[in-house]
Amino acid sequence: MSPVSSAPNSTIRIALAGLGTVGMGVLTLLKQNQGVIQTRTGKTLEVVAVSARTRNKDRGMDLSGLAWEDDPVALAKRDDVDVVLEMVGGETGTALELVETAIRAGKSVVTANKALLAHDGMRLAQLAEDNGVQLLFEAAVAGGIPAVKGLREGLAGNQIELVYGILNGTCNYILTSMRETGRGFDAVLAEAQELGYAEAEPSLDVDGYDAAHKLTLLASLAFGTELDFDKLQVEGIRRISAPDIMIAEELGYRIKLLGLARRLADGSIEQFVRPVLVPQSSEIAKVEGVFNAVVANGNFVDEVMMVGRGAGAGPTASAVVGDLIDLARGTSVPTLGVPCQNLVPAKLAKSEDLYRAVYMHLSILDEPGALAKVAEILGRYEISIASLIQREGRSGLPVSLIITTHEARYANIRAARAELDALSIMAEPLHMMIIQEL
Amino acid sequence: MSPVSSAPNSTIRIALAGLGTVGMGVLTLLKQNQGVIQTRTGKTLEVVAVSARTRNKDRGMDLSGLAWEDDPVALAKRDDVDVVLEMVGGETGTALELVETAIRAGKSVVTANKALLAHDGMRLAQLAEDNGVQLLFEAAVAGGIPAVKGLREGLAGNQIELVYGILNGTCNYILTSMRETGRGFDAVLAEAQELGYAEAEPSLDVDGYDAAHKLTLLASLAFGTELDFDKLQVEGIRRISAPDIMIAEELGYRIKLLGLARRLADGSIEQFVRPVLVPQSSEIAKVEGVFNAVVANGNFVDEVMMVGRGAGAGPTASAVVGDLIDLARGTSVPTLGVPCQNLVPAKLAKSEDLYRAVYMHLSILDEPGALAKVAEILGRYEISIASLIQREGRSGLPVSLIITTHEARYANIRAARAELDALSIMAEPLHMMIIQEL
Repeated sequence: MSPVSSAPNSTIRIALAGLGTVGMGVLTLLKQNQGVIQTRTGKTLEVVAVSARTRNKDRGMDLSGLAWEDDPVALAKRDDVDVVLEMVGGETGTALELVETAIRAGKSVVTANKALLAHDGMRLAQLAEDNGVQLLFEAAVAGGIPAVKGLREGLAGNQIELVYGILNGTCNYILTSMRETGRGFDAVLAEAQELGYAEAEPSLDVDGYDAAHKLTLLASLAFGTELDFDKLQVEGIRRISAPDIMIAEELGYRIKLLGLARRLADGSIEQFVRPVLVPQSSEIAKVEGVFNAVVANGNFVDEVMMVGRGAGAGPTASAVVGDLIDLARGTSVPTLGVPCQNLVPAKLAKSEDLYRAVYMHLSILDEPGALAKVAEILGRYEISIASLIQREGRSGLPVSLIITTHEARYANIRAARAELDALSIMAEPLHMMIIQEL
Repeated sequence: MSPVSSAPNSTIRIALAGLGTVGMGVLTLLKQNQGVIQTRTGKTLEVVAVSARTRNKDRGMDLSGLAWEDDPVALAKRDDVDVVLEMVGGETGTALELVETAIRAGKSVVTANKALLAHDGMRLAQLAEDNGVQLLFEAAVAGGIPAVKGLREGLAGNQIELVYGILNGTCNYILTSMRETGRGFDAVLAEAQELGYAEAEPSLDVDGYDAAHKLTLLASLAFGTELDFDKLQVEGIRRISAPDIMIAEELGYRIKLLGLARRLADGSIEQFVRPVLVPQSSEIAKVEGVFNAVVANGNFVDEVMMVGRGAGAGPTASAVVGDLIDLARGTSVPTLGVPCQNLVPAKLAKSEDLYRAVYMHLSILDEPGALAKVAEILGRYEISIASLIQREGRSGLPVSLIITTHEARYANIRAARAELDALSIMAEPLHMMIIQEL
């Protein structure tokens, strides 16, 4: 059935579309570690054809022995190819057409493209199943960490209750750097861009969408639910200020951009990507800089945490080649961990019914009675205050009022927030983050 | 080829030998999570026959529907069984005979038995390969953490440079508790025994052998080398004193029983299980209590760390059933990550040629010139002192002298140690531990 295990001469013939950082990382790994891969699989993984936007460009490696296609989609149609690596990127267009064409041609596909899968993964998984090929994507989530394999296989005996993680190294680097240097978001972002840790157009990362793509995949693997990117609550890190970071620390918390999906007692699923305050003593708080982490909690295994590099040529290539080795060994697993017909729609939890503790940062005009107004609103909505910090401000300027609350019904928190934002003493909209005990 | 994928009616028929904590954990998991396992695999994992030392014993579950064998080895011969679970334990005798018989009968085997594999794994892996069946052992290393799968599959594209971990929860619990309470080894061991974290006969754990069994398996998976338990340097935690723990903390270190295997530049392998001082700032230092951790460093993925529960019914059952799900999906991987004929003997590093920093705890008689004698010996062997602490002792009693050194040739350190131990001022043999930067 699988075109891979029947490849002639024990060679897996690979077509590679995309010769950017990741694509070149894969080529480098396959060349440098050829011996160890042959030892482990008894097979040769050989790239036979490539495609990229620009042909004549010095990529630091001699590619003259490889067939070239100007059109990446043509790779999928070649008779001398068993497996297609989609390293083009982008959630539509060429990447999508390439993957579809390869699967229809009976070729297994390995991709690192979380955006593509978050949007079109359901259809592509079904297509792969119908065509008896594998669609593998370890590199799409948390880079070099074998988190997809961990959930799909290692922990597959468990009902997963909770999965969460630090899924975007750019955001984690920025938050760590803000904490360590006391600087604001804009300054640290600019530095991250100079260092190559953030893109010139940073929105995909700092607005949370990249992490949301990854969480969409993790949630499906964890709960056997259909991919449903559009229903995910997503908030990025742009509004986090230097004082937020500092005061969170003082209160014993650390701010992390967290992707989290949890099965509640009624079977519904709570899920979000947003900055949250986590206790400094939690393991996830200690994952700093460009590192990623994925934590899963299963009903028998309890908690398992995996930490490693979430991006970069080497870690991503490691994940891609791990998938290729699975193919070489003839491993066959459902794309999303369960046969497509067994995937069920996720019943999403109603967030208004959840109880949450929150952190509120209010910037208020320094008038008599201001605090009384704030306190009255919170009290009326049955939101009790856990801590309150008011910094001495400069005369005439707004003052920062930081409130953390005990758990309260989220519908009440939202209503209170709306009333607070409507007060004439508010100098700017309230900034609120969830406090997540983990 | 595989007897599993051809099982009738999409049912995997399982025989379970051993109804202790782990065996009953597996039964409980298979019953409780039957639905999710069927969803994921499209198959039913059904235990059809069991065996244990005592038949009539209340195990809290109705086993009347299952066939019973007084002799566990008889399970391996039953025609109605596809897979045998060896949960008997012990490195020879029944467990060995059961596994051999099952493999010869063409049945795949899942085991949690690290001792058995560390001693006889080479022969059993070859036997499994010859008979076209799988011999899986995720539960044998680090309990619920999918570390075997991580190394064998997820990171298989890498040349692994280093693998290490906290592989024995009992020892880690004892060391953590000694640090937190300031008590000595004996008192904490007694408490751990009362709590069920340590066996009545604790030698397998506290003398390092259990961790050594696990490291033997990890090293083979990491480096593609033959299992070689007998050549492993093993030292346990009995000699660690409350002052050792306290002073290590003061110096910025933490004492952990570490299993470590590293490939050196010349291709030789350094490996040991022993208590070492690791920097408090290292990730491994933060793994406390009964938790286990496995860290691997590959030439492309860099460092990946996995943390979770290393023992207990639930985590162990999770790992066993993960292996069963692999079998149900028809996954076929070499037992030790490479086909047996590709395993090579490990060329062990000559420890005398290595450079190490060490911690020395000397108990010396409080005489004039004592320190000079110690310093003279270290100086003569070109061992330079990084820190030195001498505590004020009670008059007439030996005093503790704690020395940490910079890196020095290990042959010199050993020779110096022998000379130090021969000094008349030594009240008891010197206690030495390696300082391991990680």
